Amino acid sequence: MRTQVGIIGAGPAGLLLALMLERRGIASVIVEVRERAAIEATIRAGILEQSTVDLMVELGVADRLRREGVVHHGTILRFGGRNHRIDFADLTGGRVATLYPQHEVLKDLIAARLAQGGHILFGAKVTEIADLASDEPQLHFTDAAGLAQTLRCDIIVGADGSYGAGRAAIPADRRKDFLRIYPFGWFGILCEAPPSSAELIYARHARGFALISNRTPEVQRMYFQCDPDDRVEHWSEDRIWAELQARLAGEDGFRLKEGRIFQKTIVPMRSFVCEPMQHGRLFLAGDAAHVVPPTGAKGLNLAASDVWHLDRALGAFFAGGDMTALEAYTATALRRVWRAQHFSWWMTSMLHRFEGASEFDERRQLAELEHVTTSRAAATALAETYVGLPYA
Amino acid sequence: MRTQVGIIGAGPAGLLLALMLERRGIASVIVEVRERAAIEATIRAGILEQSTVDLMVELGVADRLRREGVVHHGTILRFGGRNHRIDFADLTGGRVATLYPQHEVLKDLIAARLAQGGHILFGAKVTEIADLASDEPQLHFTDAAGLAQTLRCDIIVGADGSYGAGRAAIPADRRKDFLRIYPFGWFGILCEAPPSSAELIYARHARGFALISNRTPEVQRMYFQCDPDDRVEHWSEDRIWAELQARLAGEDGFRLKEGRIFQKTIVPMRSFVCEPMQHGRLFLAGDAAHVVPPTGAKGLNLAASDVWHLDRALGAFFAGGDMTALEAYTATALRRVWRAQHFSWWMTSMLHRFEGASEFDERRQLAELEHVTTSRAAATALAETYVGLPYA
Repeated sequence: MRTQVGIIGAGPAGLLLALMLERRGIASVIVEVRERAAIEATIRAGILEQSTVDLMVELGVADRLRREGVVHHGTILRFGGRNHRIDFADLTGGRVATLYPQHEVLKDLIAARLAQGGHILFGAKVTEIADLASDEPQLHFTDAAGLAQTLRCDIIVGADGSYGAGRAAIPADRRKDFLRIYPFGWFGILCEAPPSSAELIYARHARGFALISNRTPEVQRMYFQCDPDDRVEHWSEDRIWAELQARLAGEDGFRLKEGRIFQKTIVPMRSFVCEPMQHGRLFLAGDAAHVVPPTGAKGLNLAASDVWHLDRALGAFFAGGDMTALEAYTATALRRVWRAQHFSWWMTSMLHRFEGASEFDERRQLAELEHVTTSRAAATALAETYVGLPYA
Repeated sequence: MRTQVGIIGAGPAGLLLALMLERRGIASVIVEVRERAAIEATIRAGILEQSTVDLMVELGVADRLRREGVVHHGTILRFGGRNHRIDFADLTGGRVATLYPQHEVLKDLIAARLAQGGHILFGAKVTEIADLASDEPQLHFTDAAGLAQTLRCDIIVGADGSYGAGRAAIPADRRKDFLRIYPFGWFGILCEAPPSSAELIYARHARGFALISNRTPEVQRMYFQCDPDDRVEHWSEDRIWAELQARLAGEDGFRLKEGRIFQKTIVPMRSFVCEPMQHGRLFLAGDAAHVVPPTGAKGLNLAASDVWHLDRALGAFFAGGDMTALEAYTATALRRVWRAQHFSWWMTSMLHRFEGASEFDERRQLAELEHVTTSRAAATALAETYVGLPYA
């Protein structure tokens, strides 16, 4: 088998890239270890930046997103027992965030790619990424039938997430990993209840952070900061609701609407970046290269901006044959990656309770929230990053 | 002796307050432990916010400030070996910072207050602050001649700095002290050299922070982050210049202009707030109530905003006799104080080297500087706070 771009991973990065390359007439094949049904059934959160929505519109894969996605014109920062709204649209000249879960995005992208006649090899496990220094690198993999296969490519893209083969193919002495593990996790629930708020609520409370989000009119997603080593079995429904209500309580009498909890998970929080994002003819995109804590809602969006840059560089490469643009990919992509890392860390640090924080630090944290919600300039700096900066 | 407002301390807070009260026809007496000559000879830095300048203009004490003060329309953040300018005037609709050292401010304020016939008792040491719960509290002090004296007042203002009698008069169980000590200090020098830059340079470098400031065309003030337990004797002129040049070095070939160093000091760095700022008929202002690290240039300016609020509350009190406005002083002043605390901490944390910081943290710090210098909104949030928010 031969193609121009071998893509590992049918996540947002891999699929968006395949769709963008198709526009340029560049052939690609996606090799994905999971089955399609499993990918589409894995419920994931998803706040799409304006830039990500614009890209999907441009690619003609936004029909359902426009129908079912919920536009958020702003978000709520809650502290001191009151809501303080950040008005994205007003602060950024009309740009907004859109709630549309990642697994819905994936359904749309997979369907669109298959409809183009694109190749997505599901259930195919990469066993080796070979000859990256040559001009014909190869992906060795075992296909869904259990047969050993080889895909010869001009370029390989590792878009296979944090634990995939992509990053592992860059020798440890040729890359630098930047890691920060936070001393807390997020306890996440899905529940059958009506929405408690039309917009997301990011709540800072002395007991710890909480996030109130929506899924559908009947199903809600909520999180609260927890010990990352805690276990979901320790938390009964009653205890979860008591904790969430306590963190959202305030002088305004706000109460969450409760309902049956049908999913409980504990999500660890970490920040990670791998540099460079290239090794010979291998290029990393999305979670394969970097992970952000979910506080800034940047994960999926960063995958989209990575491949937007990669698509342009690949266009230049296949048009003229020279690697200049591709060699610049790491520097170009990392600028936005570190910007998002800072933003995600900042949102996290401004809203979470840190064990051992002094009372000075708590007051300072509240003063920062006060600043962000009363200075138009500071609110704009938050809003413009939340809805996503233009790619170029 | 009797007066309406007994003020401890002839610093910026005490003197500005006496001048403001005079406008209202409210009598005050300042009791100051140091001699006038000593106060006027203690060289201090000084960046005045637009609001502080406006207040001095309003009080008619800005003639020399307008003549000799150097207007800074912007400042430089230096990192990655290059200058990145924050244009205050452009970002804030014409507001600027003014370089005019604190001891020059004090000379002007003392002269103005004495010219009004105001009482400043120099060399007078407070021995007791008594009867704060009564409506005639007293300042007991030893005057310059060594005689015990008592000043009976309606209100006492403690504007006598971090180590004065004012704060100490609030019993420990009636106040809460918030303290953060930074694990570094600033090594400060005065040198005979021409300016290296027309505007202040705040430099972030892997070796640590440095600040390049000006005094006069012939004398410059510079600082570099150091071990707070280091000693000035360990630093020869050559070693100091080598360190400063290293921290300012960059791809643009920038070099500091060197000259004879005639003063060396090590300044500790801390953040401090005392809450409340009132105890009965005693009110604290300026450093007596709070200390900021010098990175945000907020110390003197915060003293000015404290007494601006206090003056209004005292006006209401002496006009109508009720304490309502004075009782609200703590809450009103603290809002701005914590805002400044956050700003000073933020400038400090963004620009200094922290022992034990991970490489992730260093990249994040650079990404934040990149953000602040490329996003107009983020730059505005910095600029508007640096030049000072309006008081009310």
